[in-house]
Amino acid sequence: MTRTIHILNGPNLNLLGQREPEIYGSDTLDQIEQRCQARAAERGIALTFCQTNSEGTLVDHIHRARGEGADIIINAAAYTHTSVAVLDALKTCDGLQVIELHLSNPHRREPFRHHSFVSAAATGVIAGFGAQGYLMALDALAR
Amino acid sequence: MTRTIHILNGPNLNLLGQREPEIYGSDTLDQIEQRCQARAAERGIALTFCQTNSEGTLVDHIHRARGEGADIIINAAAYTHTSVAVLDALKTCDGLQVIELHLSNPHRREPFRHHSFVSAAATGVIAGFGAQGYLMALDALAR
Amino acid sequence: MTRTIHILNGPNLNLLGQREPEIYGSDTLDQIEQRCQARAAERGIALTFCQTNSEGTLVDHIHRARGEGADIIINAAAYTHTSVAVLDALKTCDGLQVIELHLSNPHRREPFRHHSFVSAAATGVIAGFGAQGYLMALDALAR
Amino acid sequence: MTRTIHILNGPNLNLLGQREPEIYGSDTLDQIEQRCQARAAERGIALTFCQTNSEGTLVDHIHRARGEGADIIINAAAYTHTSVAVLDALKTCDGLQVIELHLSNPHRREPFRHHSFVSAAATGVIAGFGAQGYLMALDALAR
Amino acid sequence: MTRTIHILNGPNLNLLGQREPEIYGSDTLDQIEQRCQARAAERGIALTFCQTNSEGTLVDHIHRARGEGADIIINAAAYTHTSVAVLDALKTCDGLQVIELHLSNPHRREPFRHHSFVSAAATGVIAGFGAQGYLMALDALAR
Amino acid sequence: MTRTIHILNGPNLNLLGQREPEIYGSDTLDQIEQRCQARAAERGIALTFCQTNSEGTLVDHIHRARGEGADIIINAAAYTHTSVAVLDALKTCDGLQVIELHLSNPHRREPFRHHSFVSAAATGVIAGFGAQGYLMALDALAR
Amino acid sequence: MTRTIHILNGPNLNLLGQREPEIYGSDTLDQIEQRCQARAAERGIALTFCQTNSEGTLVDHIHRARGEGADIIINAAAYTHTSVAVLDALKTCDGLQVIELHLSNPHRREPFRHHSFVSAAATGVIAGFGAQGYLMALDALAR
Amino acid sequence: MTRTIHILNGPNLNLLGQREPEIYGSDTLDQIEQRCQARAAERGIALTFCQTNSEGTLVDHIHRARGEGADIIINAAAYTHTSVAVLDALKTCDGLQVIELHLSNPHRREPFRHHSFVSAAATGVIAGFGAQGYLMALDALAR
Amino acid sequence: MTRTIHILNGPNLNLLGQREPEIYGSDTLDQIEQRCQARAAERGIALTFCQTNSEGTLVDHIHRARGEGADIIINAAAYTHTSVAVLDALKTCDGLQVIELHLSNPHRREPFRHHSFVSAAATGVIAGFGAQGYLMALDALAR
Amino acid sequence: MTRTIHILNGPNLNLLGQREPEIYGSDTLDQIEQRCQARAAERGIALTFCQTNSEGTLVDHIHRARGEGADIIINAAAYTHTSVAVLDALKTCDGLQVIELHLSNPHRREPFRHHSFVSAAATGVIAGFGAQGYLMALDALAR
Amino acid sequence: MTRTIHILNGPNLNLLGQREPEIYGSDTLDQIEQRCQARAAERGIALTFCQTNSEGTLVDHIHRARGEGADIIINAAAYTHTSVAVLDALKTCDGLQVIELHLSNPHRREPFRHHSFVSAAATGVIAGFGAQGYLMALDALAR
Amino acid sequence: MTRTIHILNGPNLNLLGQREPEIYGSDTLDQIEQRCQARAAERGIALTFCQTNSEGTLVDHIHRARGEGADIIINAAAYTHTSVAVLDALKTCDGLQVIELHLSNPHRREPFRHHSFVSAAATGVIAGFGAQGYLMALDALAR
Repeated sequence: MTRTIHILNGPNLNLLGQREPEIYGSDTLDQIEQRCQARAAERGIALTFCQTNSEGTLVDHIHRARGEGADIIINAAAYTHTSVAVLDALKTCDGLQVIELHLSNPHRREPFRHHSFVSAAATGVIAGFGAQGYLMALDALAR
Repeated sequence: MTRTIHILNGPNLNLLGQREPEIYGSDTLDQIEQRCQARAAERGIALTFCQTNSEGTLVDHIHRARGEGADIIINAAAYTHTSVAVLDALKTCDGLQVIELHLSNPHRREPFRHHSFVSAAATGVIAGFGAQGYLMALDALAR
Repeated sequence: MTRTIHILNGPNLNLLGQREPEIYGSDTLDQIEQRCQARAAERGIALTFCQTNSEGTLVDHIHRARGEGADIIINAAAYTHTSVAVLDALKTCDGLQVIELHLSNPHRREPFRHHSFVSAAATGVIAGFGAQGYLMALDALAR
Repeated sequence: MTRTIHILNGPNLNLLGQREPEIYGSDTLDQIEQRCQARAAERGIALTFCQTNSEGTLVDHIHRARGEGADIIINAAAYTHTSVAVLDALKTCDGLQVIELHLSNPHRREPFRHHSFVSAAATGVIAGFGAQGYLMALDALAR
Repeated sequence: MTRTIHILNGPNLNLLGQREPEIYGSDTLDQIEQRCQARAAERGIALTFCQTNSEGTLVDHIHRARGEGADIIINAAAYTHTSVAVLDALKTCDGLQVIELHLSNPHRREPFRHHSFVSAAATGVIAGFGAQGYLMALDALAR
Repeated sequence: MTRTIHILNGPNLNLLGQREPEIYGSDTLDQIEQRCQARAAERGIALTFCQTNSEGTLVDHIHRARGEGADIIINAAAYTHTSVAVLDALKTCDGLQVIELHLSNPHRREPFRHHSFVSAAATGVIAGFGAQGYLMALDALAR
Repeated sequence: MTRTIHILNGPNLNLLGQREPEIYGSDTLDQIEQRCQARAAERGIALTFCQTNSEGTLVDHIHRARGEGADIIINAAAYTHTSVAVLDALKTCDGLQVIELHLSNPHRREPFRHHSFVSAAATGVIAGFGAQGYLMALDALAR
Repeated sequence: MTRTIHILNGPNLNLLGQREPEIYGSDTLDQIEQRCQARAAERGIALTFCQTNSEGTLVDHIHRARGEGADIIINAAAYTHTSVAVLDALKTCDGLQVIELHLSNPHRREPFRHHSFVSAAATGVIAGFGAQGYLMALDALAR
Repeated sequence: MTRTIHILNGPNLNLLGQREPEIYGSDTLDQIEQRCQARAAERGIALTFCQTNSEGTLVDHIHRARGEGADIIINAAAYTHTSVAVLDALKTCDGLQVIELHLSNPHRREPFRHHSFVSAAATGVIAGFGAQGYLMALDALAR
Repeated sequence: MTRTIHILNGPNLNLLGQREPEIYGSDTLDQIEQRCQARAAERGIALTFCQTNSEGTLVDHIHRARGEGADIIINAAAYTHTSVAVLDALKTCDGLQVIELHLSNPHRREPFRHHSFVSAAATGVIAGFGAQGYLMALDALAR
Repeated sequence: MTRTIHILNGPNLNLLGQREPEIYGSDTLDQIEQRCQARAAERGIALTFCQTNSEGTLVDHIHRARGEGADIIINAAAYTHTSVAVLDALKTCDGLQVIELHLSNPHRREPFRHHSFVSAAATGVIAGFGAQGYLMALDALAR
Repeated sequence: MTRTIHILNGPNLNLLGQREPEIYGSDTLDQIEQRCQARAAERGIALTFCQTNSEGTLVDHIHRARGEGADIIINAAAYTHTSVAVLDALKTCDGLQVIELHLSNPHRREPFRHHSFVSAAATGVIAGFGAQGYLMALDALAR
């Protein structure tokens, strides 16, 4: 049976590559998806990759992953710090793995980015590796 | 003139019955709606029942209830604790009654669930009675 | 076997009906007890109804309920917010149900009323329904 | 080249004129837009004016303004106080001006309205001037 | 009609004169009562003077004063800092005057003595004048 | 030897009688001074009475009192809550008595008025008795 | 002269042995008293052992011990964390020894049990040794 | 009758134009006053413009404006964040308008600049528009 | 099989008897060890007694005790309040008993001594009994 | 030139495999080192791997890595949360990469584990992947 | 060109030598100035030495030093802890050195003396050396 | 008798001159020691100068100074902010002088560097003078 993984991206990540490239790098989210799809194909994984600026839609995406029995890699961006709804959605995914992903290290930024609601439901955290972090997360789940 | 009541449900409640049944019970939201519609019919109340994962749509629902002059029973779930937008929407409903509803007792859970923005606009609160709470709220408004 | 319920009332509730009627309503505690006794009689429930201004006596009342295997409806009033002794007493009532009751919604009042020690031991909470809340609680336990 | 300005309005502002007129005045958002469009036309500015109850859509609106190289006047209402996503979106608008607008003075209201995530990305703030504030902001950008 | 005043004393004040005389002076509570009764007699005031170590009994005493339409001078001692029940009782005394009395100045002592629940219901405060404060309070009410 | 007392008044008290008379009464500071001078004359006390809006001048006034060996009655108004300089000045008055005076009870007002730097150097506190408090303080020192 | 020791027990300890025996053990308070009386008899100590659910009565008991010049072993239970009145009572016992006793270790329980008002007046603390702690405290005083 | 407006400037604003021009601009306070006087003359407004480094003198200035029935534009600078005396002075100006003005946006600076005592008495706030803010405030009052 | 107990002492305890004898007594750590060894010998217990000023060495000592299956009496002194490493080390000692020991009662000292990381892993706490506490702890474990 | 990487392990990690295997896994630190050495050898990296229970020695290890120009993978364990010395040492490694590693996700554990001093100097963070995290970190640096 | 240094003294320092000599020593401010002038003369420094009880005048003094291009030694006394105005004034002195001076060590006194607004603009701090600190500061600047 | 002074240096100071020279200067610790030894020789003082990265060893060094009756100049670096053990060690040095030294001014750095445990035991503090501070401290003790 093919393994399924969903990579979920939160608000403002659609601007990746255009926004503060010295912090976030010059890769666009499309380029990142392509690299992830290639890596997933190598490993025989069915990969869903999506982005939304809406908290509610992010909750919908988590429910969809849950419905498919897919493990989740989530870069919730700003909702990491403010969304109990995302936390509650992730908590419904009991038997699944959840990896929290950040391009930069939030603990080196403003204090309101030091708290993560996502962490309370995440088995693993990868932060500060830029676009490379997506492949690290995929590889970690693939093992 | 027929009395109107809106029952509004927030994020993740669409998974009711599937998610942590030992906490939330095995009733689905559809089953709860059916029981509420039956009870409303008995009492001659026009009942609107809806659910959304989106904070903005929950605000829209409150505006709709306000437009219809309907009293509100709201289980805002995660948005209870984080949404000033929902609070502001409820505050626009001056002459209407607002009942805050929770399946479990949030004060027995994590500290971030102890604060409720909804409470600042609620005339009554019912928490911890599971699915039965919906009927209790309907009955209380019907009196 | 007859079911037993104790309704326990805390400090200052003996003045009900005389004190700030625009907030608490004009019903006296005696009138509320009469309505509760009538409702309990209809449902075949043995009801004990008492009030005290003393934290220690409130603890005694809880112990008595516990000794009789009675479920508890408790409006602890001011002790809701300050009494660890009441919380510890309620925690000894393991197999019994405990409903926390408030006439008004404490979350719309001063900040020191937002914390409830009682909640940590309560299965359900009913607040803001005035004297009607007593009957709602009785009905909820009766089901 | 025509200058472009986007005026973005957050949750519950669609009810303006109906809701607490003693605080927010009796102008509707439509009337405010008409006055802003007239003023913009006088000054040869292309004006986009929109409102949404959704945090995600507000982020989308900011991205659209950014795409058009438009300066932004934003009355984020409730999201002022809770939305890191809106802050992050505004931070992507590096070369553009951002004016934070409030109808009333949030510092005279509840404590949770004293913190503004929007302010961290705003060059200017105008608060407490009611509907007049929109024209003040337009004039300030026009200079 | 004779005016009535109740002077209510809280926990540990029965030990006055024996306990830390360098702080509280060497007057016993009996001696203070005698001086207060003499002063009240001069002014034609009916004075009730009592002491209790119990929070509930202190609430009872306030209710009794309220029932007699008496103004209140209250040295709630330790309950000043911990008793919402005493505050709620004092708040029921709407048309009556309430003077908060302390022998020493609590703001010069430990931080937990800096907050007073009694103050929220007191029209006047007299602190730090030792036994003389009782007569000052009587005189102030008599005027 | 004639006893000397200084009554020191802080910022905005020059407007007494004109400002929020429902809170502070309709007595002007001049009228209060006249009553205090009369009472002091009766008791053979040399009274200095002054007012200033300046923190530094209030410190100067305290130094002058100290230089004359005078006891102090101080209504520091706003500087009560913000001035370490006033506290340090009062602390230099070791053998003298210091009475902290307030027209209203600061503990019933905004939280930032609950802390008093003056209290840390005051032997007695009188609050909430309006203009009468000045005479109570004089009488207390006279005894 | 016979040495006197009072062992004072606070709220809910009358239920010992019946309540959460996995935490508090299966010994009843009567059994503990018997063991303490036996040990005291061996050592020629006059032992008073009492329990109350009332804060005021606990204060009375401390006053009684003080009157007899007895050292005190106090398990104040819930009042440990909330009672300034008990602290003030213990502070009147200057020349006497006070041992604070807990069956379990409060620092391993909820945060509100980490603060002890009793500790500020206790020479020694024994916690977490269950019923054995009573004999340890007796032995320590006896030495 | 000629309308009167007072523009009051707090500490360190006398150095404007010399101090951190990249933040505060290169306009001196004299140049700003000249522009304000010209604008006021156009609109037939009698304008008083002053600056002081002293908290007490700033209070005096507010009293003078109040005495003349003048509306107030106040850039209290550092006293914005620390002065209860200025707040109390502004609160005496009941029927008058008060605009709080800042050259930069204090919410983008150190945390201790995020709290404003002035805001609690201000009808409107203008911040972050540099010297232009003075004219915006004048225009807003003139309308 | 001989029972083994390790008594571990933290920083500055090597100066015992020389440092603030009015607080800590005049016994040296050597004298305490001799008394403990004597008591252990009486009871047939193999006792290891050591002291270190280093947090890492204290962790090493705990590991050694764990390796020998020894129960632990630990007076961690300053590391009580600051060392997560010591807490983690103690948490590895699952089946063993851990007694937290203090010569004085830390709750009567500075606030930073009120928190104990050691407590989170201690079954029992003995504080305030000076050198006698060591023997009390030994006796408690011996039983 | 051969690339050099140091893997530094903090307190209690020497017990890995023996301590709470359900949390930390059954791998010993020796087995982890062997796997890391094998992976480093494949990639032509010179690897130093060490462990210490001492904060000072951990600082020494960081200095040694810095002296060799080696990148650092650091699992500081308990010192993550308490050591400013480790932070300062890492901050001296300007041109080098620092990866913060944790076996479990500290944000799902006690609140005092949510703050990381190490993060302030770490370019990347990997947490919650157990022993696999070491290889992930090595691979990330190798790229 | 002669070097210029201003030594600025804040509130209550005019009482030096008279006030709590056991803390502040018996030197008067005049004696300290004489010693400073002598030392400055030896080193060819033009020294201005002044004292004020007024926050605004202290700001004026800083402006004057700034105008003369003088380095500053400031003992702001109470204003150290409360004055943002003094901080802002010091921040205008970009190219100049600022030494913060205290006679005693504020960190050993009340908690409200632990925060220093002056420190945020000071290059160096000297505290706890009494009158000698003035000469230490002069010498340090002279080097 | 020759006077003895110990200069104790904490973690990471061994890297002085190599690490962030724009903050800490380019002097190495060896060069600083040489200058201190020269100055001590001039003044006839026996100087011990040492450095350690270990908290426990720093405690040992303090004990050694105490044993020799030496005054102490301590730059505890990171342990300034985290070490209760160092504080307790310094508190054992009753008759000796303790100068707290910092190269930079910690109050201008991160908030966690604003608290100093060392200050609670230091008679004097010198901060922000770089390497020169060592000689200032020596000179101050020599006087």
